[in-house]
Amino acid sequence: MLINGAPGSTINAEDRGLVYGDGVFRTLRMQAGRPVCWERQYAKLQRDCSALKLACPSALVLVSELQQLGKQQPDGVAKIVITRGLSARGYAPSAQSEPTRILSVNPATAYPPEYAKQGVRVHVCKTRLGHQLLLAGIKHLNRLENVLAASEWQDQDVPEGLLGDVSGFVISGTRSNLFMLRGNSLYTPNLSRCGVAGVQRDRVMDWAKQHGVTCKVADFHMEELLMADEIFLVNSLIGLWPVCELAGYRRNQHPMAWKIQEWLNDEHH
Amino acid sequence: MLINGAPGSTINAEDRGLVYGDGVFRTLRMQAGRPVCWERQYAKLQRDCSALKLACPSALVLVSELQQLGKQQPDGVAKIVITRGLSARGYAPSAQSEPTRILSVNPATAYPPEYAKQGVRVHVCKTRLGHQLLLAGIKHLNRLENVLAASEWQDQDVPEGLLGDVSGFVISGTRSNLFMLRGNSLYTPNLSRCGVAGVQRDRVMDWAKQHGVTCKVADFHMEELLMADEIFLVNSLIGLWPVCELAGYRRNQHPMAWKIQEWLNDEHH
Repeated sequence: MLINGAPGSTINAEDRGLVYGDGVFRTLRMQAGRPVCWERQYAKLQRDCSALKLACPSALVLVSELQQLGKQQPDGVAKIVITRGLSARGYAPSAQSEPTRILSVNPATAYPPEYAKQGVRVHVCKTRLGHQLLLAGIKHLNRLENVLAASEWQDQDVPEGLLGDVSGFVISGTRSNLFMLRGNSLYTPNLSRCGVAGVQRDRVMDWAKQHGVTCKVADFHMEELLMADEIFLVNSLIGLWPVCELAGYRRNQHPMAWKIQEWLNDEHH
Repeated sequence: MLINGAPGSTINAEDRGLVYGDGVFRTLRMQAGRPVCWERQYAKLQRDCSALKLACPSALVLVSELQQLGKQQPDGVAKIVITRGLSARGYAPSAQSEPTRILSVNPATAYPPEYAKQGVRVHVCKTRLGHQLLLAGIKHLNRLENVLAASEWQDQDVPEGLLGDVSGFVISGTRSNLFMLRGNSLYTPNLSRCGVAGVQRDRVMDWAKQHGVTCKVADFHMEELLMADEIFLVNSLIGLWPVCELAGYRRNQHPMAWKIQEWLNDEHH
């Protein structure tokens, strides 16, 4: 772990990242010691920092630190946390705050290979995401809703949960973005009121554009989701998991999801 | 600062308090080396821990640590942070997590004495609190909404901002609870959808009960607030501040607020 560029494992207990969750993060894969899909990841990090008026470290600094950490774990999972650092007491950020950057690379979790092929069973979470337009889409450090949702089920064979919002719209997995196929069109939930807009979601939308497949960002309910021809979840660590079981929904074949999965596996896309 | 009972100033950079805001806190005054209104503070801490299924440290441990810290700062401001500690990666908390407790006592901020007498000018925040029934009322570590709200104004003579929610109801100050007097009745916002229910709010409601004054928890809009006879803000650090200026509202006299203020100043109430 590198904290502001220096090897370490601790941060100041008054850091605003801890006391207010005042910061953002990204989780990404490393491949042969390099961060995968780096340009997209960095663009999101910049956008998220800017939404919170945080100074984003330069790509040069981040890449060099990730590569340094990648020497020990060339195919690990990298995490970048940027907090607003220290300030005088109180919620108002001070202009002089120096951001804290925490970079780590850990061994990747080995998921059962059938998750990517046959698909995953998904829990339907009771926790509903609240609406906050100022924070929607941002991967910030206020993640108690995800914690509550993820603590709803214990079944080890159910690797993800489905999150809806307070209006009853489908939003995402607890740590993944969601797509459904209906007919010839893909749909992914509107994340303008809540949720996190991840890099792999953008990539799937790019796939659709390049392959002449309509992909709509839309508000839809659980009942509509359950009528989908295919459902799949994406994030930078899992890649793409088709959904084989979710409430009343059952599927064994995921032809479109498998096609997109293959495309996503090539990071140059 | 004491971290899990030992002098220190840093925490593990993978602590769930930092990476997810998975924890709760309290801020309270010390007087002659002892925590003020301790029973009420501890009851709230227990309730908040329990809402997040966090193990709450015993009162015995916390008081003994606060008194230890209070030797250096007998009339300072204490902060207690309880996080879920470390866990395996991912949002789901593990049963084995040992909570992290961070206790500190710092010098109290000296506010201008006129804030408590003549009252304060209050900014009306554009930031609106989102609804999340599972987290409403809890003083948890996900405080980005408060950070955004507090960064809306810079005027040093305006020490607090008024927060509404996404439905347009008045909720609180950015770091204080709010009351209004209309006729002979007190009203304080309903905090079942958002906001933090502080110890001083409970005390004002107790004052009302003991003095035969009706105090209603209610949903009300800004326009109703501006027609109040008196408005005041409370928290454990500021005590009670009458509001002298807020959008179209102006008041020089705050007879009810002054009465309650005096009562609140005696911690045995």
